[in-house]
Amino acid sequence: MPSIHSSTPPVVVIAPDSFKGSLSAEQVAEAIAGGIRRARADAVIRIVPMADGGEGTLDAMLAAGGERRLFNVRGASSKRRDAATGLLADGSAIVETAEVVGITDPDGMAVPVAERSTLGMGESIRTLLDLGVRKFYVALGGSSTNDGGAGLLVGLGLKLFDVDGNTLEPVPSQLARIAHIDATGLDPRVYAAEFTGMSDVNNPLTGEHGATAIFGPQKGVTPEQIAGIDAALAHFADVLEPALKLEARDKPGAGAAGGLGFALHMLGARFEAGAEVVAREVGLDAALEGADWLITGEGRSDVQTLHGKAPFIACQHARAFGVEASLLSGAIDPAALPRLSEYFSGCFSPAPGPITLEIAIRDAATLLANEAEQLARLKFGPKPS
Amino acid sequence: MPSIHSSTPPVVVIAPDSFKGSLSAEQVAEAIAGGIRRARADAVIRIVPMADGGEGTLDAMLAAGGERRLFNVRGASSKRRDAATGLLADGSAIVETAEVVGITDPDGMAVPVAERSTLGMGESIRTLLDLGVRKFYVALGGSSTNDGGAGLLVGLGLKLFDVDGNTLEPVPSQLARIAHIDATGLDPRVYAAEFTGMSDVNNPLTGEHGATAIFGPQKGVTPEQIAGIDAALAHFADVLEPALKLEARDKPGAGAAGGLGFALHMLGARFEAGAEVVAREVGLDAALEGADWLITGEGRSDVQTLHGKAPFIACQHARAFGVEASLLSGAIDPAALPRLSEYFSGCFSPAPGPITLEIAIRDAATLLANEAEQLARLKFGPKPS
Repeated sequence: MPSIHSSTPPVVVIAPDSFKGSLSAEQVAEAIAGGIRRARADAVIRIVPMADGGEGTLDAMLAAGGERRLFNVRGASSKRRDAATGLLADGSAIVETAEVVGITDPDGMAVPVAERSTLGMGESIRTLLDLGVRKFYVALGGSSTNDGGAGLLVGLGLKLFDVDGNTLEPVPSQLARIAHIDATGLDPRVYAAEFTGMSDVNNPLTGEHGATAIFGPQKGVTPEQIAGIDAALAHFADVLEPALKLEARDKPGAGAAGGLGFALHMLGARFEAGAEVVAREVGLDAALEGADWLITGEGRSDVQTLHGKAPFIACQHARAFGVEASLLSGAIDPAALPRLSEYFSGCFSPAPGPITLEIAIRDAATLLANEAEQLARLKFGPKPS
Repeated sequence: MPSIHSSTPPVVVIAPDSFKGSLSAEQVAEAIAGGIRRARADAVIRIVPMADGGEGTLDAMLAAGGERRLFNVRGASSKRRDAATGLLADGSAIVETAEVVGITDPDGMAVPVAERSTLGMGESIRTLLDLGVRKFYVALGGSSTNDGGAGLLVGLGLKLFDVDGNTLEPVPSQLARIAHIDATGLDPRVYAAEFTGMSDVNNPLTGEHGATAIFGPQKGVTPEQIAGIDAALAHFADVLEPALKLEARDKPGAGAAGGLGFALHMLGARFEAGAEVVAREVGLDAALEGADWLITGEGRSDVQTLHGKAPFIACQHARAFGVEASLLSGAIDPAALPRLSEYFSGCFSPAPGPITLEIAIRDAATLLANEAEQLARLKFGPKPS
């Protein structure tokens, strides 16, 4: 059998998602690159950090260029925090829900989900409007909120009133009491702006497949609360849709980020798979031109990976270019291997044997570099002499 | 860069050691073969179980042909047990120390190391002599004993006496009291026989690099006992060497198997690296003719692997045939990767992420098959259509 060992330098595209709780996508990519270089010093390496609309999307988009800006806005608990957003090279902006009202923010998680709000998202967008931005990417993964996006709209000028004319807060516990919505204060610049919701879920706002029933529990919604909060979101939509003369609650992605997707739909947003937006913005296809191998990965891969997660999108792009894609994730669900193997040319974990999660996270960069080196040795053989 | 993807069926040699405490070498090989076939149904697979003179050597040698025989002999504790030996196709026999007086035998380990004996080794050899065997392979790894091989010789007719003419047992606690050795009863057939000691250690019988100091502790010799037992072995050699008119205590491998190597040397044995003997007997080189890839492995690989362990010997043979060798071991010591990478084209563990040792052992066959499949996908690409 002919050997692959060629003296042509191999071209390797490294396009991982972040390893949540451990390394950013860029750190993962750098670790993998270091390992590949140890195996083949002559390798041409193209680093393309990926993300899918969740935590790390801002970083991935900024890795391709742009400017990080910190805005002091309300977190999910309404406690103020400095949250980063990104100004991209083309004048558009990326606002990451996970960064502003994320599930990893202890302040936000310290208050009950019924009291959390996406106000800070509206504030961030308003600040960006003030800077002249008219094109927004909103990354919808990783939120701690379930407010139907009421906070975002209130942050942009919407007003909620109860039957006595008292102002209501845009939190789930108060939405059921809305008697009247005043949309006249809604910042008119939003109508001149273009919003893109980045999401990998198609759920509607309410019902058995809605935001509360499906994603509420991981945010702390108890089984007993689901019906009440779901009804509160439905009531919010009942009042908002006529006020804005638009129906959006059943649009795909309305249920993303606790219903923040619904609010974006109400602003006329289009929706796109988060990883597809990132792939385009970071120039994945350009990197794949003439490449020999793509390595992608994430903290943990299972069958959900095939539902629009970053490694799957990266793999699909690679295959379109005739480039083989291998998966190098912190952990691979063995039960998912038959499905994953339909797409990936090899699925691997950097675990060098039985190790604890703690060690895996602590040594992630070293172990990733080691595994990438070994995989490159297997794939490309010894260094040309 | 040219792709390796060829429609020629790949030829893969699978030559692992056993995964101690988990799977035999043959089970490991079958698991790996199953995975490779999932990736490439057309692959030509040659299974060559390996071993290095320790536990599993008998199984590996018999996998190439021969007959397993059970003899009722004394274990290390002198409790009788059915211990397997192997009659090979060419009329020679393989006696595995680990099988007769092995460290995994709870009965043997239940008595103090100072009371354990290799008598059963002598009994096994005597029984084989009765069957007409005159060529012996003695696999020296995995013993629980530290008797200088006194047991083996007594089992073959040697007699040990104290100063009062009382018979002594061939156990460490009595060796220091030997005043006289009667070698006249030693089975004369041993002088017509050919012994090959299979070992991957070169230690002498006694001293700071001797059997007791180096290997005693893992058998239960306490730090306080080392000097006494070492002196007892030296005393045994002091009396035996003049009696047999041969000096052997400093020969390489005399310290193998608690000094069993010394006794073999006293019978004129030649010594060979265990894995080299196995490689020859199982026909590794013939399997490597025209092969594209060798996969070897063991329960755990570290820098010791490069000191004559089965995967290293398999790798060296593969390289001599221009065949790349990859290592697939239950665990790989990350610190050893730079050294291992000088020889292996990729070192991998089947761990699919952070897992416990218990799970790794329980699911070893499944995980090995999975990893082999993924490696084959990476190396050989998709199945030809």
